[in-house]
Amino acid sequence: MSLLMDNQFGELPVDKSVDTKFFLESVAYLPLFFDCLGSKVFVPIKSDISGNITKIRSVYDKDPAKYATLQQIVESEKEAYGTEWPKVGATLALMWLKRGLRFIQILLQSLADGEKDENNPNLIRVNITKAYDQALKKYHGWLVQKIFKAALLAAPYKSDFIKALSKGQEVREEDCMASVRQFLINYTATVDAIYEMYTTLNAELDYSV
Amino acid sequence: MSLLMDNQFGELPVDKSVDTKFFLESVAYLPLFFDCLGSKVFVPIKSDISGNITKIRSVYDKDPAKYATLQQIVESEKEAYGTEWPKVGATLALMWLKRGLRFIQILLQSLADGEKDENNPNLIRVNITKAYDQALKKYHGWLVQKIFKAALLAAPYKSDFIKALSKGQEVREEDCMASVRQFLINYTATVDAIYEMYTTLNAELDYSV
Ligand SMILES: CCCCCCCCCCCCC/C=C/[C@@H](O)[C@H](CO[C@@H]1O[C@H](COS(=O)(=O)O)[C@H](O)[C@H](OS(=O)(=O)O)[C@H]1O)NC(=O)CCCCCCCCCCC
Ligand SMILES: CCCCCCCCCCCCC/C=C/[C@@H](O)[C@H](CO[C@@H]1O[C@H](COS(=O)(=O)O)[C@H](O)[C@H](OS(=O)(=O)O)[C@H]1O)NC(=O)CCCCCCCCCCC
Repeated sequence: MSLLMDNQFGELPVDKSVDTKFFLESVAYLPLFFDCLGSKVFVPIKSDISGNITKIRSVYDKDPAKYATLQQIVESEKEAYGTEWPKVGATLALMWLKRGLRFIQILLQSLADGEKDENNPNLIRVNITKAYDQALKKYHGWLVQKIFKAALLAAPYKSDFIKALSKGQEVREEDCMASVRQFLINYTATVDAIYEMYTTLNAELDYSV
Repeated sequence: MSLLMDNQFGELPVDKSVDTKFFLESVAYLPLFFDCLGSKVFVPIKSDISGNITKIRSVYDKDPAKYATLQQIVESEKEAYGTEWPKVGATLALMWLKRGLRFIQILLQSLADGEKDENNPNLIRVNITKAYDQALKKYHGWLVQKIFKAALLAAPYKSDFIKALSKGQEVREEDCMASVRQFLINYTATVDAIYEMYTTLNAELDYSV
């Protein structure tokens, strides 16, 4: 599980604010996660997520002190943009990024919890579908949903996915899952905090693409 | 037809060499062509093609005199890279880019020739499918082919496509098609020349993604 373990998320402070700099550093490795799925068809997803990260970083870089936490970015943009907000700037980028993060979280959690298709224990389609249904499906129109169903067929075997997560090393599934569980602690807390912030600040939209 | 007409390709010299600078200038507008298809699902295609162009440009910018024509780029890379070539550098980028260019060419030619589904004269699926079958299908595995079939359902009506090509102006289909025919003259010659060059230099590969 080195891919994720090498780049763990930090523990949140009590006020659950998310430090922008640390967040950007940890999240920078997540696009690589989609390489673990092993097919070129996932390149557009990787680009989409990388684009979100770049957009948030470019806002942060303009004034690191002002944008020290993700909350400060979203709040500043709420003031700066009028009625355009929240469909704009880093607020929009983070709105979508958090869904990708949630997708990864639910997928890993489901694997760590041992959820599987008993007839095909080496497939991860049930885990991916669960993550997709909960994190993304409602934000996708029928066409993207249809494309998802096709792309699902390119999902790797569990053993290959675990090997990729472990940067090519053969590790025991149980060892990998122990690392996943460790990674998920701060990661899930961070993703939850971002979701809560969007609710609190009324920054969430539910249009579909 | 202003999108394409405003950025016409130049006439080729007798030796059919393609001037890199002019080529890059003309081709820079083509990613916008995919916006004319009117759906966000075509964003990944636009990015793929933009990526090809960026890669060719970055090689050109290193030494504009050395890389004055596309042929010179491909020939230099053939010498510079050993057995890696042609799956490398601007040679690879242009190998894929030309397929996207061919796709656009066949689609526009088919529309200009009046090919249509008599039962659905305002759909362009037959034209897109023809272009896909001839330019791309064999380079796509079953999965991407399946995704194409789904994406095809997002293709615009002919009238909307023509309007988008005309930058939002309502023009008569016949006027638009006259411009398309004009555009296609040098465009097709350029695309043909690139294909010939790949054959001559043995730079073509037929693996699928
Ligand atoms: C030859 C065949 C060709 C067929 C082509 C088909 C292409 C298929 C396309 C599939 C879609 C790929 C995934 C991308 C989906 C995105 O559209 C959505 C929405 O993206 C947001 O849209 C926004 C636009 O919004 S609007 O202007 O307000 O309308 C922004 O552009 C935003 O970027 S921003 O940083 O600039 O703010 C951007 O992320 N992205 C997602 O759904 C996220 C996907 C996350 C990961 C999914 C994991 C799935 C794994 C599946 C495994 C089987
Ligand atoms: C939530 C749901 C998520 C589902 C996600 C599904 C995503 C679907 C993906 C669809 C595919 C989008 C189209 C892109 C296809 C590309 O894979 C191929 C091959 O691309 C090349 O691969 C190469 C890799 O080769 S390798 O290393 O040697 O293996 C290079 O990366 C090269 O770039 S380069 O500049 O760096 O050289 C790159 O262009 N591109 C195409 O097929 C071109 C598409 C052109 C336009 C198609 C027009 C279709 C219009 C359809 C309309 C209905």
